[in-house]
Amino acid sequence: MHTMFEKLDSAAATMESFVCVGLDPTPERVPIDDVLAFNCAIVDATKDVVSAFKPQFAYYEAMGIDGFRILEKTIQHIRDVAPGHVIVGDGKRGDISTTATAYATAMFEIWDVDIATIYAYQGTDSVEPFLQYPGRGVYIVCRTSNPSSRYIQDLVVDGSDARDQVFDRVANMADRYAGTENVGLVVGATYPVDLRALRSKHPEQHFLIPGIGAQGGVVEETARAGANDRGGGFLVNSSRGIIYASSNPEDFDIEARNEAEKLKNQVNDALKQTARSASKL
Amino acid sequence: MHTMFEKLDSAAATMESFVCVGLDPTPERVPIDDVLAFNCAIVDATKDVVSAFKPQFAYYEAMGIDGFRILEKTIQHIRDVAPGHVIVGDGKRGDISTTATAYATAMFEIWDVDIATIYAYQGTDSVEPFLQYPGRGVYIVCRTSNPSSRYIQDLVVDGSDARDQVFDRVANMADRYAGTENVGLVVGATYPVDLRALRSKHPEQHFLIPGIGAQGGVVEETARAGANDRGGGFLVNSSRGIIYASSNPEDFDIEARNEAEKLKNQVNDALKQTARSASKL
Repeated sequence: MHTMFEKLDSAAATMESFVCVGLDPTPERVPIDDVLAFNCAIVDATKDVVSAFKPQFAYYEAMGIDGFRILEKTIQHIRDVAPGHVIVGDGKRGDISTTATAYATAMFEIWDVDIATIYAYQGTDSVEPFLQYPGRGVYIVCRTSNPSSRYIQDLVVDGSDARDQVFDRVANMADRYAGTENVGLVVGATYPVDLRALRSKHPEQHFLIPGIGAQGGVVEETARAGANDRGGGFLVNSSRGIIYASSNPEDFDIEARNEAEKLKNQVNDALKQTARSASKL
Repeated sequence: MHTMFEKLDSAAATMESFVCVGLDPTPERVPIDDVLAFNCAIVDATKDVVSAFKPQFAYYEAMGIDGFRILEKTIQHIRDVAPGHVIVGDGKRGDISTTATAYATAMFEIWDVDIATIYAYQGTDSVEPFLQYPGRGVYIVCRTSNPSSRYIQDLVVDGSDARDQVFDRVANMADRYAGTENVGLVVGATYPVDLRALRSKHPEQHFLIPGIGAQGGVVEETARAGANDRGGGFLVNSSRGIIYASSNPEDFDIEARNEAEKLKNQVNDALKQTARSASKL
């Protein structure tokens, strides 16, 4: 059986794209009345230029039980029209023991996502129940892209020669599972220095990189900092920058595709330049 | 308008109980076929000896959309039969920006819980969207009761004279909102030394204390360590220890009530002893 991140590498190679589209619909912002039809139109329009989709669970939960039906049907639609694509369930779940097992059941058996985002503030106890599903994976929230992430994530750990920060220790936790190849990290795009440092310390980890677009990360710098030495091992996610590229019900899907394609090309161009620079050395 | 924690104090005083019952049903363990009927029977049987109920969202999510209907109807039932009781929505959500707002909408408008548990690994950005609901509250996950919590929570912060640990910094974050009185902390029962230290540093914070019963925390020690100097300001939660007190479909509710009442009395006795000792000084 392939590991989840082998599937992801394969999807990225096939699609020649490291782009993940965040499916984060709010009824007030969606330009048509039907949120499910909106999601399906975004998936149909962008699937040829991306390798993954990431529904953010909060937006579905905020719509109540109707929202869960939309989530369920959106995921079914992705499986139907883009069966090789990876689905990241972004719920940032985190708990221990039978509760963590219940979250893993929900993510992998009920919602059928390929990779779930999780917190590991509670340690390995909150990671391991998710690893009972060999064909699935998790991204542990490690270094996020928002200003106040510094309150906890940036703290320097006493007594560590390398002056580890808290987010380094979260990243080290992921290394414990390196052999299983189903644990990656969420590393925001807005701190490229940290992204580069994490890539250097964790050359084989897969990174999910949000913060592109609406949150202000610069695409080329992010792609170069996030890629492994084979020019892969990451996804850049854009949500609002793609799905709300146009508020016009006539062309929102075309504009979403244009934005996704632009992002795909920016990332690929940056990686090609890096490869050319490297080959000149 | 009363703050959420004033409501909680009032419920605890009225019921003379600091006990919260965790409603964490798994269909395989529930002794009758109908999970909703099970929940309602537990609520009916225990409501006179507890002041709060805490559905753990993972267990409902693991049942899919049927599970959300059970959650919805369970909460409605609590509102109907125990309107003064507090409902804690234990989902440990955590995100930023519009996503955090969507989670707050889900917790307070869709599910109508009084207090939501959240992570603050992403900093204050993940707390503040929840504080837009003045009559509601949050418990920030601070010090948990599981062995591997040490990997992150126990790390000592470099350069802090007080040798703060990461969980201290999470607790300090809650102090920023002391005036609003709607931010409390989740502090596990299995590390009474830390519980006592956190109480000493944060005399006015409200604590949700899981880890009683199935997770092994000692009740009396926990109650004394967790109470504020007025003998309140906390909830002890027991889930499996109460709801699965009996696997017999004929008496599971009676046994659940017995366990809840026992816990209520153990806590109250411990607090009375403390008060007596204090008055002798």
